[in-house]
Amino acid sequence: MGSFTLRTSARTELVDVTDRVRAALPETGGRSAAVVFCPHTTAGLVLQAAGDGARFVASDLAGALDRLVDESGPWRHTEEGDRNPWSHVRSALTASSLVIPLADGDLGLGRLQAVFLCEFDGPRDRTITVTAI
Amino acid sequence: MGSFTLRTSARTELVDVTDRVRAALPETGGRSAAVVFCPHTTAGLVLQAAGDGARFVASDLAGALDRLVDESGPWRHTEEGDRNPWSHVRSALTASSLVIPLADGDLGLGRLQAVFLCEFDGPRDRTITVTAI
Amino acid sequence: MGSFTLRTSARTELVDVTDRVRAALPETGGRSAAVVFCPHTTAGLVLQAAGDGARFVASDLAGALDRLVDESGPWRHTEEGDRNPWSHVRSALTASSLVIPLADGDLGLGRLQAVFLCEFDGPRDRTITVTAI
Repeated sequence: MGSFTLRTSARTELVDVTDRVRAALPETGGRSAAVVFCPHTTAGLVLQAAGDGARFVASDLAGALDRLVDESGPWRHTEEGDRNPWSHVRSALTASSLVIPLADGDLGLGRLQAVFLCEFDGPRDRTITVTAI
Repeated sequence: MGSFTLRTSARTELVDVTDRVRAALPETGGRSAAVVFCPHTTAGLVLQAAGDGARFVASDLAGALDRLVDESGPWRHTEEGDRNPWSHVRSALTASSLVIPLADGDLGLGRLQAVFLCEFDGPRDRTITVTAI
Repeated sequence: MGSFTLRTSARTELVDVTDRVRAALPETGGRSAAVVFCPHTTAGLVLQAAGDGARFVASDLAGALDRLVDESGPWRHTEEGDRNPWSHVRSALTASSLVIPLADGDLGLGRLQAVFLCEFDGPRDRTITVTAI
């Protein structure tokens, strides 16, 4: 299993981590897919568009998730002193793991697809693991 | 493949099934991940926070999903006599399978992560399977 | 790895592709699960109900996702000339991959479960891959 850690820089933010996932991918001999796993409960993962012509897709998605699950409640988790129940809900709408087929030992992503870490309670250190299956 | 069945107790409810998933995990010799699979279409799965300081996260998430997909339509599934189209939609926003890396033969969950069965049309009997891959 | 391509016929549409996934499933000898993968960023995958008594579940789900993420913004992706930021967000709420346990070499789906391709920016050609893991 490979892994990497990064520091996010905003409360809500999508970070393209495709290159870091590739670098952390273990030897894949005989394996057919990679699992990208997020062990955090106020962050998540998504495959979405990046690159020319898609510069704003990630920030639009971040904004849309914030609007979809706004801070209006009722919430009970706030009674525990945490000001982030909406962060848990936003994270639950993304994926805790991505399963990506391997092609010639590399991630078999679509032409526009990139792996995004979705931060909903940053800035924080986040660790992502990559496993060949 | 291992499995377990449980009876849910409310219309919408998140049940921490982490211990049951662990107990149902088959021999993992040489395997690198576990697949937790929900074969139902008005229930789902999510990894979210449990334990001290997160007692209310699951119920907040259940409430938020109910608000996000409320019973106002229009719906056509109700013409078939079923009063649960919103249950299918809420379930579609959760995961039908979770893929969790294995660490020393055990679920490699994050420190706060627990496996939740998300019931959206209970009370019902629900069966979850666990496969090593 | 197997694959199939289909042409969708509407802007938003859920298409039952279960039979095509089965036909594309490679030899599964010794494998325990199948990965159905969508390489597109304005489409996705979901396991939901099909068949008698569930004819309208897929169209209800399509309608609910359109209502949940409507076209009101603000959006910045539109500055790039694309009229589909909401398509990316709707797709992000579905799955990029489904992991389905195998039973006797076949998809181990629940009694009511079918595999749906979720189109959010059609009509388009969409290619789905199926990998045994």
